[in-house]
Amino acid sequence: MRKVFSSTQKAYLAGFLDGDGSIYVQAKPNPTYRYGFQVAPYVVLYQSSKDRARFEKVCALVGLGYVRERRDGILEYIIGKADNIQKFLDLVAPYVILKKPQVALMRRILKAKSFVKTKEDFVALMKLIDTFRALNYSKKRKVRTLTL
Amino acid sequence: MRKVFSSTQKAYLAGFLDGDGSIYVQAKPNPTYRYGFQVAPYVVLYQSSKDRARFEKVCALVGLGYVRERRDGILEYIIGKADNIQKFLDLVAPYVILKKPQVALMRRILKAKSFVKTKEDFVALMKLIDTFRALNYSKKRKVRTLTL
Repeated sequence: MRKVFSSTQKAYLAGFLDGDGSIYVQAKPNPTYRYGFQVAPYVVLYQSSKDRARFEKVCALVGLGYVRERRDGILEYIIGKADNIQKFLDLVAPYVILKKPQVALMRRILKAKSFVKTKEDFVALMKLIDTFRALNYSKKRKVRTLTL
Repeated sequence: MRKVFSSTQKAYLAGFLDGDGSIYVQAKPNPTYRYGFQVAPYVVLYQSSKDRARFEKVCALVGLGYVRERRDGILEYIIGKADNIQKFLDLVAPYVILKKPQVALMRRILKAKSFVKTKEDFVALMKLIDTFRALNYSKKRKVRTLTL
């Protein structure tokens, strides 16, 4: 069964994502993968654990991921499956303001990822993923060099 | 001129507030005030300063407060005037999920504040303000004792 979201539910989620959400892709070195990297896209919503019950209500409304609690007590609602990320982005895209560039880039990456057939395709995908770093501006994230 | 907000704009702001916003009241000891305290209500939206341009776009949409940058680089959009807080809460109230209790409590406090005529009224107001502590659950915030 496919859930139907009202326009205000979609706009609420867009506001939540802009306020305290994150869109990013990890390229984890992993020799069991064909090109040496596992490409893992994520959409995450955050909340302090004091509001757990209500936060889980919001997450249940979304229904595309799972909640985990970090060691520092922050709750994360993690959407990690490509199909579900796609669905979530389709919901919020018309209403997102701050994270418009991240939404657009993630859509390009999901498309590129699903079409990878050659090493060249994969290198192009990794370049796209690299541009997330500039958008999200994290100095802590390690630079992954592609060694094929 | 009174701005008109669409239902999706209101829902977006409700989501933003739930994601990374704060509703609270400070009771600052101040002998120049009649009952020894300045009662200062706030609604604040937060954002890291890397998204300043887009964040200011959101704030301009709201049009009820001002942006300041903290020393740690976090941007705050501060709504501090009682009338404007009232307006903002009226906009988002139908769509807020996580901060429903805070919205309700702030509304009660704004009402109580506008009706203070006696010391008893003020004591009642301070008690209401105290209940915010439990809601927002900050152990860092100092307990203010009312000494009249």
